[in-house]
Amino acid sequence: MNLTSFVERSAGTWRSMRSGHSLAFQQFEEVLSQITIEQLTSHDQRVLDLLESTSQDPALIQSPFRMEWSAESDWEPDDPSEVSSGSCVLVPVPEDQTSGALLRSVGYAEAEQAISQYRFLSDGTFVLTTKYGQSIAEERIWFVSEHVRCRSSVLRTSEGSGVLQTSFASEVRRLTL
Amino acid sequence: MNLTSFVERSAGTWRSMRSGHSLAFQQFEEVLSQITIEQLTSHDQRVLDLLESTSQDPALIQSPFRMEWSAESDWEPDDPSEVSSGSCVLVPVPEDQTSGALLRSVGYAEAEQAISQYRFLSDGTFVLTTKYGQSIAEERIWFVSEHVRCRSSVLRTSEGSGVLQTSFASEVRRLTL
Repeated sequence: MNLTSFVERSAGTWRSMRSGHSLAFQQFEEVLSQITIEQLTSHDQRVLDLLESTSQDPALIQSPFRMEWSAESDWEPDDPSEVSSGSCVLVPVPEDQTSGALLRSVGYAEAEQAISQYRFLSDGTFVLTTKYGQSIAEERIWFVSEHVRCRSSVLRTSEGSGVLQTSFASEVRRLTL
Repeated sequence: MNLTSFVERSAGTWRSMRSGHSLAFQQFEEVLSQITIEQLTSHDQRVLDLLESTSQDPALIQSPFRMEWSAESDWEPDDPSEVSSGSCVLVPVPEDQTSGALLRSVGYAEAEQAISQYRFLSDGTFVLTTKYGQSIAEERIWFVSEHVRCRSSVLRTSEGSGVLQTSFASEVRRLTL
């Protein structure tokens, strides 16, 4: 698994079942959502905008893509911290065959632009680490078949090793008829 | 991470938050449980019983342990397929530094004795694959800190690549005062 094939396999529309675990309060959260991932060209204006704002050399990027999500149901609709829909542009900047940086127009745990580090484990699992002001997020994405992928995340405090919350999503490709 | 240190780090009592995803029906399940893992000696009678029933050479085993679990709450108490408590004896048989077999007195997905294959990924994630009569289960366990570990599982049909269900558990060590 390399970056190009990972992005290619991820392209499409996915139905996601996501469970969140708040460890301190032992609370569960369940969200059904739809996620669409589309590959972008390197000269797409949204890619160029992100490169300009981060002073990134356009010659070093590879396989940019865009992700869009919208929640179909959320058992805690009154929670204002839940973002029910959104989109972001993601631009990988490989450092070698198995690792590099990933520029994101909007972060995962906090709604700010972010630069993540990615690496592939020996079995092709994609691991993404993002440092925010107050927290560090580690996401793992792995394919269990062509049309099913799993995604886990762990959010911890940036100082110390306190784990705040975890989540796990099962994503099934939505096949168009 | 090697087998001995993995078993040593796993020893103790854990509070588990577990979410199950039934992909075909898009159903969520939530279970709170307590898991206790204790290391056993190689000459423990429960280990010897398992070795005898599987004709395994006792000289090749390493770091046997016992796992016990009990559900504290289950949002679907009427589901007869849910086992709310149980225990099993697990005996690793290393083949090399990063992989081997794992004998289990009771399986995870089906209540029968099973032989799993385990391997460690490049970052220390423990991956366990078990073939049952009707299904194949892949479990992944990784530590996110000394006192927090994550465990995912994917259950698929043994013929074809149909994914039946997934689960994810966040396990926090219960510290004794």
